[in-house]
Amino acid sequence: MSSAVIERVGTFYGVGVGPGDPELLTLKALRVINSAGAIAVPIAKEGMSATESRAFMVIAQEAELIGTEILELYLPMTREADTLESSRTEAAALVADRLSAGSDVVFITIGDPMLYSTFSYLVPLVKGAAPEADVQVIPGVSSINAAAAASSTPLAESGERVLVVPAAYSIEELRHWLEEFDTIVLMKIFRKIDELVDLLIDTGRAESSVFVSKVGWPDEEVVTDIRNLPKKERPDYFSMLIVRRG
Amino acid sequence: MSSAVIERVGTFYGVGVGPGDPELLTLKALRVINSAGAIAVPIAKEGMSATESRAFMVIAQEAELIGTEILELYLPMTREADTLESSRTEAAALVADRLSAGSDVVFITIGDPMLYSTFSYLVPLVKGAAPEADVQVIPGVSSINAAAAASSTPLAESGERVLVVPAAYSIEELRHWLEEFDTIVLMKIFRKIDELVDLLIDTGRAESSVFVSKVGWPDEEVVTDIRNLPKKERPDYFSMLIVRRG
Repeated sequence: MSSAVIERVGTFYGVGVGPGDPELLTLKALRVINSAGAIAVPIAKEGMSATESRAFMVIAQEAELIGTEILELYLPMTREADTLESSRTEAAALVADRLSAGSDVVFITIGDPMLYSTFSYLVPLVKGAAPEADVQVIPGVSSINAAAAASSTPLAESGERVLVVPAAYSIEELRHWLEEFDTIVLMKIFRKIDELVDLLIDTGRAESSVFVSKVGWPDEEVVTDIRNLPKKERPDYFSMLIVRRG
Repeated sequence: MSSAVIERVGTFYGVGVGPGDPELLTLKALRVINSAGAIAVPIAKEGMSATESRAFMVIAQEAELIGTEILELYLPMTREADTLESSRTEAAALVADRLSAGSDVVFITIGDPMLYSTFSYLVPLVKGAAPEADVQVIPGVSSINAAAAASSTPLAESGERVLVVPAAYSIEELRHWLEEFDTIVLMKIFRKIDELVDLLIDTGRAESSVFVSKVGWPDEEVVTDIRNLPKKERPDYFSMLIVRRG
């Protein structure tokens, strides 16, 4: 008998679980989740547990998790560079430990792992800590596609141009983009919703804009005439506007 | 006994089947497909049959289609307005017939039904021909998210701006967008690939651009350094470039 040991290093998966409706999980996401050694769950707030995470709630019903480690990764949303770096480094080390022990680790993320997810920040750090590990990305239904579906608003018909922008832009920039592009998807609008609605009314886009909040969740909200949005009320973090050329 | 007849009008579903890998079907897409009275399959070329359609190939393995009508809709890709209008009107009439007879009709589409799909053109025509019918859209994994996953290229990290543009634009416009946005997804690049590659090399984006063709298909191709793309060779219709800020 040989004393050689086959050292299997695990694979680090980034898996998109879709926008919120557990039925929007893909067959591939479920298969990969069900065969994982550990499910890595991003935790945005201190003291929160994995079971309170949106991504975990999506998979909890459908996945078979008996015997699977639930690995909570504390990844706060903050602008403090030091806190971001230390939390990400720590999370990557926890993931790398499991990979080096031969376990596949599945990082679950709402929507798609390549679109506004913490996953892409973790990849280089995990690769640094476990260079032998393979990385695989399983795409998911993004909340943008789901919001378009929920509101029956085309994102693009043939030849059309689509711009996706999160919070940081000036109203002047937006005014310019409205002229240049057919569809503009405004993410993370909670900070400046009143200003945006005023601009869209002003530029004749009120009727061709839709507001979608918490798409795929039981309390999903779709407002097809944005003049009906309540003023001075901050919408949920997971809300967006889809603005179409009139 | 009453002689009243309950007239049930069917629902017209637009269902995204994902980019090509049958495992990227969602649970919801499968459920809706399996309970449909008719599956409407877009046929782009005359003489083609449903079984040769990409969207149909995606569902053929996983779906239970015994007893389901396969409704071929001839929807040619052409710029002739008359042909487009007559083919769409005819397709809508075929769908409306089934809906009025109480059958649910599921229009399957590669990727997502709200992003560069014929589905959004059909909806108003079907509503015109069967005003009582309900329309529901089931989002799918778009080929953009799948291409980003296959090439491990983030589409956007926090705060970043993403522009998606299909064929018709000038190299001058593109040069300008490269300065303004973090990610540009260039679709339907087959017409001008050499010109694009030259510009990306010229602007220092060769290493931060990826070429992805037929994502999710057995002959998927990912080229991470676009200087390696063969010159004077038209890529497949289903290919794209993801260009990131360097």
